Amino acid sequence: MHKEVLHIVKIGGNILDDVDARDEFLGQYAELESKCILVHGGGKKATSLAANLNIQTQMIDGRRITDQATLDVVVMVYAGLINKQLVAGLQARGVNTLGLCGADANLIQSSKRGAGKMDFGFVGDPQSVNANALHAMIETGWMPVIAPITHDGKGQLLNTNADTIASVLAIALNDHYDVQLTFCFEKPGVLLDANDETSVISELSMAKYNQLKDGKQVHSGMIPKLDNAFEALNKGVTHVHLIHALQLNQIKNGTKLVQ
Amino acid sequence: MHKEVLHIVKIGGNILDDVDARDEFLGQYAELESKCILVHGGGKKATSLAANLNIQTQMIDGRRITDQATLDVVVMVYAGLINKQLVAGLQARGVNTLGLCGADANLIQSSKRGAGKMDFGFVGDPQSVNANALHAMIETGWMPVIAPITHDGKGQLLNTNADTIASVLAIALNDHYDVQLTFCFEKPGVLLDANDETSVISELSMAKYNQLKDGKQVHSGMIPKLDNAFEALNKGVTHVHLIHALQLNQIKNGTKLVQ
Repeated sequence: MHKEVLHIVKIGGNILDDVDARDEFLGQYAELESKCILVHGGGKKATSLAANLNIQTQMIDGRRITDQATLDVVVMVYAGLINKQLVAGLQARGVNTLGLCGADANLIQSSKRGAGKMDFGFVGDPQSVNANALHAMIETGWMPVIAPITHDGKGQLLNTNADTIASVLAIALNDHYDVQLTFCFEKPGVLLDANDETSVISELSMAKYNQLKDGKQVHSGMIPKLDNAFEALNKGVTHVHLIHALQLNQIKNGTKLVQ
Repeated sequence: MHKEVLHIVKIGGNILDDVDARDEFLGQYAELESKCILVHGGGKKATSLAANLNIQTQMIDGRRITDQATLDVVVMVYAGLINKQLVAGLQARGVNTLGLCGADANLIQSSKRGAGKMDFGFVGDPQSVNANALHAMIETGWMPVIAPITHDGKGQLLNTNADTIASVLAIALNDHYDVQLTFCFEKPGVLLDANDETSVISELSMAKYNQLKDGKQVHSGMIPKLDNAFEALNKGVTHVHLIHALQLNQIKNGTKLVQ
């Protein structure tokens, strides 16, 4: 059966902090000419707001430790400010968007990460995606813009990795659509040499990724992102790309994951 | 034609600042046993956040002057923290909610209030309501929770009075449903004597309201709320009540507006 294309685009915090860059990205996103879901982060803004409120932000392995005060900050910044600015910006560009988090329509239910070696606080790992609700929204003509906040179904909001959300949404919607999952970030693709922007790896397999990891050739900040990207590939999402946020319209210049 | 009941409930900031009171309100709201829209404010939290960030909050006639920094704060607090806490709290009580602002699905488009005697900044007056989108959401089983933020359709978010939003939503949805509009606040109804909580006016007509205003017997803070409530009544919403937020299940004890 021929399935319709659904673009799922993850956009990181860096591009969102720069209004001109954000607007250029939104212009490219609005020209995708397909059904689409935008998943966003917003890290730096949350960090600066927390600092202004004298809330100390602890990061371990690139993950924010989320106490109650920090949770309130990320809910405000991610699900409030960033989400609604993106929605209003896309409405102005003719994309009929719906700004949501995982609690809305019970889209993404998570479990609070257990206190093992490290207690991450109010951090959630997605357990279920309400694909039927997302499908119904998209078919009605409402394109979701998703903030990286989920809930446990018992009233607790949880801070959740935006790359993971993009990945689990792609996997969950792969039965309904021909999903094209694109991780946008501040580099033109996965680089063989982090200091050389022309060293983009155009096709990256799991075997080659493992090789690069073994040789410490992958920047540590890229590992969670690539793990999420390969998770989608391994669960049947055939189109997974990594590209600079301002090259969303030149996706073939980036990195494509291959089996 | 028999129309189905739709409860539109406006809840103010006071009750939301107190977690126990909020939870009791949510329990009563979850027991409405009808289709429903919740419209919320969140004034005090926004004021305290602004103070913590050294943003001065100017109020004139009970209206907040919304400069860029203040707009960011109210978007964060109203459309982010308060909205998502209400959504998660209602999901936990079995109400399948969708937390939205006026930019989402282009639900409420506003015009920026013109700089006349007083420039209110980024404040919007609703110009159009997308009743078909709200109707489609409700019929799908998604009950909207609406934050008092709208947009101008050109990318600008605007701070908007929550009582006004409740009123314009009630008017716009009156063709689709038998709308029951309830303004919840911190008093048991409109009081004849502000210091006597037993002096609830059980039925209030426009004529009596004008009489009370002329005699300075209406608390000034109540005037915008009552103006919004009468606007809905005058535009055909036959059930308009004002009641204490924790007496949502005893609506007949409050004030009912009558022709």
